Amino acid sequence: MDRNAPIGIFDSGVGGLTVAREIIRQIPEERIVYFGDTARLPYGSKSRDTIIRYSRQIIRFLQTMNVKAIVIACNTASAYALETVRAEADIPVIGVINAGARTAVHATGNKRIGVIGTEGTIGSGIYTEVMKKMKPDIEVFGKSCPLFVPLVEEGLLHDSVTDEIASRYLSMLKGKYIDTLVLGCTHYPLLRSTIRRLMGEGVTLVNPAYETALELRELLKSQDMSRDEHVPLQGEKYQFFVSDLAEKFTDFAAAILPGQVKETRQISVEDY
Amino acid sequence: MDRNAPIGIFDSGVGGLTVAREIIRQIPEERIVYFGDTARLPYGSKSRDTIIRYSRQIIRFLQTMNVKAIVIACNTASAYALETVRAEADIPVIGVINAGARTAVHATGNKRIGVIGTEGTIGSGIYTEVMKKMKPDIEVFGKSCPLFVPLVEEGLLHDSVTDEIASRYLSMLKGKYIDTLVLGCTHYPLLRSTIRRLMGEGVTLVNPAYETALELRELLKSQDMSRDEHVPLQGEKYQFFVSDLAEKFTDFAAAILPGQVKETRQISVEDY
Repeated sequence: MDRNAPIGIFDSGVGGLTVAREIIRQIPEERIVYFGDTARLPYGSKSRDTIIRYSRQIIRFLQTMNVKAIVIACNTASAYALETVRAEADIPVIGVINAGARTAVHATGNKRIGVIGTEGTIGSGIYTEVMKKMKPDIEVFGKSCPLFVPLVEEGLLHDSVTDEIASRYLSMLKGKYIDTLVLGCTHYPLLRSTIRRLMGEGVTLVNPAYETALELRELLKSQDMSRDEHVPLQGEKYQFFVSDLAEKFTDFAAAILPGQVKETRQISVEDY
Repeated sequence: MDRNAPIGIFDSGVGGLTVAREIIRQIPEERIVYFGDTARLPYGSKSRDTIIRYSRQIIRFLQTMNVKAIVIACNTASAYALETVRAEADIPVIGVINAGARTAVHATGNKRIGVIGTEGTIGSGIYTEVMKKMKPDIEVFGKSCPLFVPLVEEGLLHDSVTDEIASRYLSMLKGKYIDTLVLGCTHYPLLRSTIRRLMGEGVTLVNPAYETALELRELLKSQDMSRDEHVPLQGEKYQFFVSDLAEKFTDFAAAILPGQVKETRQISVEDY
C-alpha cells in the first residue's frame, strides 16, 4: 500500500462532490480521484443487483488509478453495495450511511429520528438497521422523496413547487415528532433551507458528508495510511472522471468545488 | 429474412409500451419482442454518444432474437441514434420522429407547430429539421420539459404541482400561437388532459405512436414482410425484456397493455 496514493470517491453523479468537499476541507493533504456515473444515473430507483454490478465496475476502475481507500459517496450505493464490495476489496471501503447514522443517534434527545432518501435507500431499511444496532431503543421513520433529485437538477431550490412537494413528503415525519432528520441523499443538503423551514428549528438536520470525512480521516490515521506531505505531488491533486457529459459535470462541479475542477475526463465504465 | 419473425421495439423504459400498444392494435398479426433499458434510464438527459452506444447494444440483443425490423420507440434515441444505427443495420429500423413530424405538418393550418420533449430531443433540433424538410415555410418552437417524466413516474398525472409545472413549460408555446403540438416523449400522452386544458381546444395534440404504427404497417407491406397468419405461433406472441427490475416493469405494463405482459425477463444488455 502506497500512503501517497489518492482516495477514490464515487457517486451516481455530481452529488458526491459535497462529500469530496468535506474531505478536502478536513484532510487537505490527501489526493482524490472522483468518479460520477453520469451515463447510468440515477441510482435511487434501480435494483440492488444493478447497483452492486455498477459499484464493482467503478471500484475496478478506481483500482486502476491505484487508490488506497474508497469512499462510496452515494447513499443508495452505500445501502445496497457497501457490504458486498467491502468483502471483496483488498483496500478499505467506507460508505456514508454509518457516519450519518452515528451522528443522528448522538444528536437525538427524544430517540425519534427521521430519514429521507431515495426509494432504494429507504426501501433497503439500512439506516434503521444501523441506528438500531447503535441504540436499540430509538425509533426510526423513513420516507423516500423521489422528486427531490429532479427538482434540484432542474434548479428549483427555492420555488413554490419544491415547497409544495417537500411539504407533502415531510408531513408524515412532522406527525412523528422526530427531533433529528438525516438528509440521506447527497442532493438533499441543497434543499436544506426548505427542509429547515418546514421541519422547524427544533429538528436537527444531519448531513452525512461531514461525519464521513471525519471517519475517513480517522481510518487513515489508525491504519497509518495518511499522505506524507513532504513527498511532492505528481500530476493533478484532484482528478475527476465521469461516464458521460464531462463538460456539463465540470460546469456543475464549479459551483460545489470552486476552482478545483479544471478538467473532467470521460471513461467507458462498463468496460471495467 | 423470415416474414414470421417478430418486430423488435425498444425504449429507455416503459414509455415505449404506448408505441407497442398502437402496433398491437394496428397490426395484430405481428409478433413483438420489447426491450426497456430500465437499468440505464432516463435517456433524455444523456449525451448523443452514450445513447448511440446504448442503442447499438440493444439492437445487437434484439438481433439475437431474430427480429425482422426494429422500432425505436423512444424519442431521444430516435433523435440521436436512428441515422447511425439504420446505416449499420441489415434490417429496417424506424423511429418515432418522422411519423410525429409528418402528422404535425399535415395537421397545422397556421404553420406554427410546437414540440415538447426531453432535453436531448429538443436540444438535437431534429423535429424542426425534419418538419422544415417536409414543409419549409413552417415555424417550429421546441420546449424541453425535464420534470414531466419524473412527475409521471411519481403518479402525479392529475395534480396541482403538475398543473403548475406544465403551465410554466407551456406558457412560452402559448405565446407563439401554435395550432399543433407534438408530444415528443412517450411519457407525455399520460399528461394529455393537463396539456389539453392548458393549450386549449384549438391546438391539435400529436402523439407519434399512432402514426409510427401506420408507418411500420406500410413498411412491412411494401417490403413483403408481413407475417403469414396461417403459420402457427411458436411460443409467446409478445415477449418483454428489461435490463433491471423486471417485476416492476410487469406491474406497470399491465396498465398500458392489460393482459398482454405475462412475464418480463431481465438481461445484461451491456454484454451485447
